[in-house]
Amino acid sequence: METSALQKERATYKPKLPKALKSAVKIKEGEPTQSVDNHKEIKNLFPNTYGMPLVEFVPAEKQDSVRINVGVILSGGQAPGGHNVISGLYDEVKKLNPENRLFGFLMGPEGLVNHNYIEITETLINKYRNTGGFDLIGSGRTKLEKEEQFEKALEIIRELDIRALVIVGGDDSNTNACVLAEYYAAKNYGIQVIGCPKTIDGDLKNNQIETSFGFDTATKTYSELIGNIARDCNSARKYWHFIKLMGRSASHIALECALQTQPNICLISEEIETKDLSLNDIIEDIAKVVARRAQDGRNYGVVLIPEGLIEFIPSIGRLIGELNDLLAKHGNDYKDLDIEAQRAYIIDHLSEENKATFETLPDGVARQLSLDRDPHGNVQVSLIETERLISDMVEMKLNKWAKQGKYNGHFATIHHFLGYEGRCAAPSNFDADYCYALGTSAAQLIANGKTGYMAIVKNTTEKAENWIAGGVPITMMMNMERRNGELKPVIRKALVDLEGAPFKKFVELRDKWAKETSYIYPGPIQYWGPSDVCDQTTRTLALEQGKDVFTY
Amino acid sequence: METSALQKERATYKPKLPKALKSAVKIKEGEPTQSVDNHKEIKNLFPNTYGMPLVEFVPAEKQDSVRINVGVILSGGQAPGGHNVISGLYDEVKKLNPENRLFGFLMGPEGLVNHNYIEITETLINKYRNTGGFDLIGSGRTKLEKEEQFEKALEIIRELDIRALVIVGGDDSNTNACVLAEYYAAKNYGIQVIGCPKTIDGDLKNNQIETSFGFDTATKTYSELIGNIARDCNSARKYWHFIKLMGRSASHIALECALQTQPNICLISEEIETKDLSLNDIIEDIAKVVARRAQDGRNYGVVLIPEGLIEFIPSIGRLIGELNDLLAKHGNDYKDLDIEAQRAYIIDHLSEENKATFETLPDGVARQLSLDRDPHGNVQVSLIETERLISDMVEMKLNKWAKQGKYNGHFATIHHFLGYEGRCAAPSNFDADYCYALGTSAAQLIANGKTGYMAIVKNTTEKAENWIAGGVPITMMMNMERRNGELKPVIRKALVDLEGAPFKKFVELRDKWAKETSYIYPGPIQYWGPSDVCDQTTRTLALEQGKDVFTY
Repeated sequence: METSALQKERATYKPKLPKALKSAVKIKEGEPTQSVDNHKEIKNLFPNTYGMPLVEFVPAEKQDSVRINVGVILSGGQAPGGHNVISGLYDEVKKLNPENRLFGFLMGPEGLVNHNYIEITETLINKYRNTGGFDLIGSGRTKLEKEEQFEKALEIIRELDIRALVIVGGDDSNTNACVLAEYYAAKNYGIQVIGCPKTIDGDLKNNQIETSFGFDTATKTYSELIGNIARDCNSARKYWHFIKLMGRSASHIALECALQTQPNICLISEEIETKDLSLNDIIEDIAKVVARRAQDGRNYGVVLIPEGLIEFIPSIGRLIGELNDLLAKHGNDYKDLDIEAQRAYIIDHLSEENKATFETLPDGVARQLSLDRDPHGNVQVSLIETERLISDMVEMKLNKWAKQGKYNGHFATIHHFLGYEGRCAAPSNFDADYCYALGTSAAQLIANGKTGYMAIVKNTTEKAENWIAGGVPITMMMNMERRNGELKPVIRKALVDLEGAPFKKFVELRDKWAKETSYIYPGPIQYWGPSDVCDQTTRTLALEQGKDVFTY
Repeated sequence: METSALQKERATYKPKLPKALKSAVKIKEGEPTQSVDNHKEIKNLFPNTYGMPLVEFVPAEKQDSVRINVGVILSGGQAPGGHNVISGLYDEVKKLNPENRLFGFLMGPEGLVNHNYIEITETLINKYRNTGGFDLIGSGRTKLEKEEQFEKALEIIRELDIRALVIVGGDDSNTNACVLAEYYAAKNYGIQVIGCPKTIDGDLKNNQIETSFGFDTATKTYSELIGNIARDCNSARKYWHFIKLMGRSASHIALECALQTQPNICLISEEIETKDLSLNDIIEDIAKVVARRAQDGRNYGVVLIPEGLIEFIPSIGRLIGELNDLLAKHGNDYKDLDIEAQRAYIIDHLSEENKATFETLPDGVARQLSLDRDPHGNVQVSLIETERLISDMVEMKLNKWAKQGKYNGHFATIHHFLGYEGRCAAPSNFDADYCYALGTSAAQLIANGKTGYMAIVKNTTEKAENWIAGGVPITMMMNMERRNGELKPVIRKALVDLEGAPFKKFVELRDKWAKETSYIYPGPIQYWGPSDVCDQTTRTLALEQGKDVFTY
């Protein structure tokens, strides 16, 4: 494997560990826990893994050797630091007993079910320390949720004499890890399952999980690029840049990038939903900022748009709902019509409110909504290029205002979508340390006989030495939610909290950003150099932990 | 101005200077020079600035104080390091005499013509040291080429008692700098003009200019992102990523990024033109690689595409030429037809060869070629999304092969265009040092009474201390070329040299890259840390200077 100079030098980085994980470890157990809601239902579903205590690791005099083989799985989208979870796990498992073995199941949960695996050796793991990506063992989106999968998995688990699985994933994967833990516990198979909080989207957090890994590196990488684009914008002074940011439903990534770079506008889906803003409201708000800047001679700007926006606009949500029903019912009358007739057909059949929404949409988007369907007949929301939709509609609005003499400026746009550029970046020092500590904690949870726990590390805005590592029962984070029409036990997803410090700080500053040009240029992630450059957490995390990060 | 932690720390970086520029400086002159071609014509056009000697700076015992006010202009697209040219210029001008003043003309050459400027002060420049972007004074694309512009400029030059202008730009801007130098010299105005080689595209280089500034940082930033995408590609193993790279006509950026990241495929426009490959040839070559990887179970990959590709495909060039003529002549018969009839009309009227080319194009692109025209009636080549065009056509080819039983794989694509993400990145150590030395050299060329020169720094693969700074007469790099139907004196643009070491190294390795997965992940630019990480030049520069950079 040929590697870059950075990869070579970075391979020698020793992640910083919390004090308690540096030598021998014992656990301190707290009080029994209960789920965040629906106690009875969750307890019924998880009789063997419900109500367990929170666990914290503390230094011990010595720790007995523990003989365990472990399997690890990467589940879902890539996030920076996954390899460090594995290296932390590897080092700790070997420390517990050099004969312990670590197996990596290939390409996600299907590797477990289909018995595709490799053994992680010292030579192999050394090539992946502190690197980005999940390429050491690959990842995949197969859901582990059926008994036959669990039983099929057991065959290879027995064959390799594995005592515990570590599943690295987002909220769904960790929910499934708990289901698996419960199943194996109920069957008395003696197999432990431990989860690990991964996702760049930042939506897996709660009062136990301060942040999911990868969010730090991904948002810093996107902020590097947004800063570069903003600097270009402020040098050429002739374009409005519309930048869509990955992050599925939640707007954490957009919010964090806004706090890091201070764009002129950043849309937050959760706010739009709460305020019940229409698409037209949003467009008008943006157009007002554009027009006001034009008055000041500033025909340029930067707009951040969260990937999930479109589904959070209540009026669009209602339109999509009615369209799905309408075309399911009348698809046959409709499908052979030509484009114009289809449009007319839809307008004829929609309710007044949704018709009004539909008529405001640019042709291309209206057609996309009425034509492109997924195999279940549903609108394919993710195909809509929100950044273009928004900028096209703003342009239409500005043209209208120009005719009315209310706007006199120049509006030229450039579009960007940032996603794949950051998911596999080499982890920042924070993510490298955090992930290594998570992997180490996962090993200790196993050594201490735990199952149905997620590895956690808290106090993460302090120095790594003062971080607090431990485990949280996954059931503690669960409630019942409706998924595909069925009530299911799931880990509650964290959307942007409109009462939280990060959003409040954003609201406090955004009018200034809109009017003036207050861009900040974070630059690329640094691994060596001054600590204030290399070891900053995200602003979201700092603000949530009560630190003021805006001290300039 | 609020700044990031990186900006704050980076502001204290002291760029490394060549030995000769560290203290007092004198010049050593070489033999008289002549233009690269068309000696007689260039000499006739530049009687006052032709034939001057190459100049090299050498250390001196002492240097007399020189009283000069200087104006500086940033021209054309942004490139990392522009602010360091200005800070180098500022520091040296002040060193020559603290009373000297530096003025920055705003938003490019039009600032000079329209008399918009600011004075660059110590407080101001300190905020911009080692930063990306051109936002200190902005940039613009107005061409300085008319006598009335030169005379209008003179008014403000006289008013500010400016003795010399420094024009920072690409090949065109430097050609115009020379035309201005010649004009002022012919008129005996006593105003000197000095150029400075800027462009991320890398197409301003020759036996005097080793590299243009910004190429280093921009290609490293794009390579960071390509590396991240490639790592994602190699983790998910289910997508082909088609990445278009900025860089106008020349493919230097694509080639350099390929040498840094080792993608499966990288198209080089200059090779395609030389080999007279058709679009179908290109598609077939890519499809073969996709099919071969599919045989090995690798339904994923990374393809780099230079921005200027489409114009370099000879058959497309011929088609565009005929379309331009055809629609200019018959535009009126044609414009009211519906889409289908327009297509038929074009096919009826094209020559056999161009008809065949046209018919191979996907509908969307064919329509773009036949409908969207610029104000001069020409096809808008830059609007064509080459990355989608290529991937769509590869998919069509693979579908055909699948039906013939020649391909059995899965082909899903993701598209990227990298450009604005890198043009304003904070300069790498190399660009920070190189630009600072260029600015310092420009000041010394002025102090030594030179005009019509470009500042240069050579020996740039050695330590900065051993770099050789000086100046080259701009006429030396000129020849006569046809531009918009007229023969004009211009600096010869450097395309990728198919006999040069960078391209040859690429050819030597690319079959391996296509078949295997040899991605390298360069990671983000580092400013502190091990020298092999922080101070590498581009691979293009190293290979051109005879260094072997593939020593892993």
